[in-house]
Amino acid sequence: FSCLYLLLCSGGGLVVYADSKPDLRIPGEQDQMPTKKKVVILGTGWAGTNFLKNLDSSFYDVQVVSPRNYFAFTPLLPSVTCGTVDARSIVEPVRNIIRKKVGGVKFWEAECCKIDPTAKKVYCRSNVGTNLEGNGEFVVDYDYLVIAMGARVNTFNTPGVTEHCHFLKEVEDAQRIKRSVIDCFERASLPTLTDEERKKSLHFVVVGGGPTGVEFAAELHDFVNEDLSKLYPKIQELVKISLIEAGEHILTMFDKRITEFAERKFQRDGIDVKTGYKVVKVSNKSISMVSKETGEIDVPYGMAIWSTGIGTRPIILDFMKEIGQGDRRVLATDEWLRVRECDGVYALGDCATITQRKV
Amino acid sequence: FSCLYLLLCSGGGLVVYADSKPDLRIPGEQDQMPTKKKVVILGTGWAGTNFLKNLDSSFYDVQVVSPRNYFAFTPLLPSVTCGTVDARSIVEPVRNIIRKKVGGVKFWEAECCKIDPTAKKVYCRSNVGTNLEGNGEFVVDYDYLVIAMGARVNTFNTPGVTEHCHFLKEVEDAQRIKRSVIDCFERASLPTLTDEERKKSLHFVVVGGGPTGVEFAAELHDFVNEDLSKLYPKIQELVKISLIEAGEHILTMFDKRITEFAERKFQRDGIDVKTGYKVVKVSNKSISMVSKETGEIDVPYGMAIWSTGIGTRPIILDFMKEIGQGDRRVLATDEWLRVRECDGVYALGDCATITQRKV
Repeated sequence: FSCLYLLLCSGGGLVVYADSKPDLRIPGEQDQMPTKKKVVILGTGWAGTNFLKNLDSSFYDVQVVSPRNYFAFTPLLPSVTCGTVDARSIVEPVRNIIRKKVGGVKFWEAECCKIDPTAKKVYCRSNVGTNLEGNGEFVVDYDYLVIAMGARVNTFNTPGVTEHCHFLKEVEDAQRIKRSVIDCFERASLPTLTDEERKKSLHFVVVGGGPTGVEFAAELHDFVNEDLSKLYPKIQELVKISLIEAGEHILTMFDKRITEFAERKFQRDGIDVKTGYKVVKVSNKSISMVSKETGEIDVPYGMAIWSTGIGTRPIILDFMKEIGQGDRRVLATDEWLRVRECDGVYALGDCATITQRKV
Repeated sequence: FSCLYLLLCSGGGLVVYADSKPDLRIPGEQDQMPTKKKVVILGTGWAGTNFLKNLDSSFYDVQVVSPRNYFAFTPLLPSVTCGTVDARSIVEPVRNIIRKKVGGVKFWEAECCKIDPTAKKVYCRSNVGTNLEGNGEFVVDYDYLVIAMGARVNTFNTPGVTEHCHFLKEVEDAQRIKRSVIDCFERASLPTLTDEERKKSLHFVVVGGGPTGVEFAAELHDFVNEDLSKLYPKIQELVKISLIEAGEHILTMFDKRITEFAERKFQRDGIDVKTGYKVVKVSNKSISMVSKETGEIDVPYGMAIWSTGIGTRPIILDFMKEIGQGDRRVLATDEWLRVRECDGVYALGDCATITQRKV
């Protein structure tokens, strides 16, 4: 029986089968028939790649659209920022996954910029160079659409964040951070600087006390103390790492004992954990933050990493408005990962949430 | 005896000792004396790094100024373009070399922008970020100056080269080329392209038949046939690699048998070696070249690498004008690597040439 299996192998081991629209053709006859159903997968992150890996592509005409032609093992991203792990070690080319699949899966390196659920089409734009004739736009038809486009970083519209802070969401971000850390040390080593200026250049500020921020702060601390201390012995004592968290504690999504352990460890390591501080503005010179006790303070910094969580991608917001979900934060699906009121459209991963049936 | 040893360990094993201005202080007393002579080394390429490694830094106050805080093993650069060798495998941090030296060698990551041989000063500008107070400029005094700033790429003022061609001189160039090759393959894989457009995107043009261009063309050929053919099986036969050389043969600096072998090998491999063609213009769509037989022809291309040789850096040209060498191609030194008529200034590597004494 030909049917669409959505095997979502998430951390918790949740497995969802969505037997939608089974048709009664015999599998052996599929290859001769020109009318294979078209499955289009948007995204090559955790959700999209896992779905692709578990899909029996011999039954479908499968097309994958993503601006990145690789899957990235994101939990190791903080280690890439300090060279503990090399970037090429945490990526897997999508085309490597595809060539192991039967039935000829196609991959287009492009950004999906519009979903039309009525006409069952997605509009895509290539982001490769400008050397292409035309504008690089094309349209892909689908019978089944799997939306797995993930999320974007969330600046909460704080002024100056996009211009002056690093994010830690993509592999390129991690590589940029790596270069930037060394730049801070080289800048602080220059002659004719005051000690104040050196301290400013070596003040690393991590905004957001979630797993990403905490992991990065810890990696940076080890990198500074184990590696950079040998290369920059004279300025090592000027380094300061601050972790800014708006809530009362860091790592609040985990067990309280983990929070306590992390806070004590950071205190011993000399990482300055500032809880109860909300960043309100970032300029090229300083980070402005407020707390109940101190009011607004300006902190000079050399480099800032913004890791306060994720937000919804604009294209998902547009799509949600179009299908009457404009009041929601992310796409709502039923327990079979079907987007409500959208025939043949499925969504999973960070761009979607499952609305449980009332029992 | 304290004297400046210039140990130039070049490929040919040439060793030059320059016993200039010996002074009669006893080595053991040096450490107590505040008047150590200042040695300033400009550059961290082959010449600068080898000089630094062989200098007895306990006798001098040594400062190194370079825009790159690492030494790069340039012969392996073509292999970095295709991922055969990782970039981090061919670089050695200057600070790693420095910390093995006695006497506290200092390193400033900055570009030298002016040499004043009368006042014995070099003017430097930091190229690290814009976050620094002031403009990042500073001045370094010297007693002995070692100019080892290398050369720049030479476009022969051909229009469009800087805008549209890749170079292969720095590690960053190699990394950019790597991304760009994959971009060409992703672009050529997109739907809605004609075969003509796909062929254009997969036409790799290497300009210059010297060692760099030939090495790169060979690496790219292997990369395409051994690795990319598995990931992009459908478009592999559309790939074309062209090697453009203005002279009659490639690799003319080597033995004739090497030239013949390389040309035959490239012919067997399907690399199109076009000798006798001079590139006169590069646009975003095509490369214009002339030959005696064909006149001017326009060749569409996907990616172009410019490797036609090296030219003199602007700062060296300025310095040569100032010291009366304005009519020369590179800095002239005597056989002790001393720049003529410049007290305490030495030059070596690609920015200099030794004028042999008439015997």
